[in-house]
Amino acid sequence: MPYDNDNIFAMILRGELPCIKLYEDDHTLSFMDIMPQADGHALIISKEPAETLHDLSPEGAAACIQTTQKIARAIEAALDVPGTLIMQLNGEGAGQTVPHVHFHVVPTSIGQLRSTPHATNPAQQETLEALAAKIRPHLEGV
Amino acid sequence: MPYDNDNIFAMILRGELPCIKLYEDDHTLSFMDIMPQADGHALIISKEPAETLHDLSPEGAAACIQTTQKIARAIEAALDVPGTLIMQLNGEGAGQTVPHVHFHVVPTSIGQLRSTPHATNPAQQETLEALAAKIRPHLEGV
Repeated sequence: MPYDNDNIFAMILRGELPCIKLYEDDHTLSFMDIMPQADGHALIISKEPAETLHDLSPEGAAACIQTTQKIARAIEAALDVPGTLIMQLNGEGAGQTVPHVHFHVVPTSIGQLRSTPHATNPAQQETLEALAAKIRPHLEGV
Repeated sequence: MPYDNDNIFAMILRGELPCIKLYEDDHTLSFMDIMPQADGHALIISKEPAETLHDLSPEGAAACIQTTQKIARAIEAALDVPGTLIMQLNGEGAGQTVPHVHFHVVPTSIGQLRSTPHATNPAQQETLEALAAKIRPHLEGV
């Protein structure tokens, strides 16, 4: 399937939709998930127009996981969390909802994730902004 | 916490325990999960003595995700699966059970994973071998 240029992450990358940004470099962008499954739930997306992990260049995949490392470390440093769960879904059949490759950092346990229904309501913007404000200092200079 | 040299993945890397191998390169090893959460569930481990994603070098993290790309593509090519879910747990609190950084490729949906209790019984070796035999040809020359 050709890449859909109008998916919401493509629109965020083009600045046509807002996001609560945590981090950005030449290859990746990270921001707060607006339907978090735990406090501090963040996303990392590639700047390549790739739908799944399979479509990313090896360099693009490397950049995503290296940013994921930075974000997960920062969340663990900033918030009182049990650990971090990294998750990345490929294909609608796997449960991928936005057709642009993205990595989740969910500061929770796999047991908790199993027992929590998938979030369907956006979190309060102020709540997300407050969490982002705690995380961002731990990303300075990384 | 210092790295535990006697964890089972360290023992597999040293050849002291067997595994049903899918792929190996200078930095990573991939093999079948012996307590699979779906048919074709595979693991990718780093050859670095790192407990979590946070402890891996950026190069080690890059190698892991690049091998994960290869394995996920091969599983999707070899088996009739709905998609692939990439998962990586950091810390006992997140549900990490083996203290050596590892990436899961689970050919299932997040909905299915939620409703399936965590596997606690090993699969039949013959079943795993048969699945591996289907996946391996798709890893030749990658």
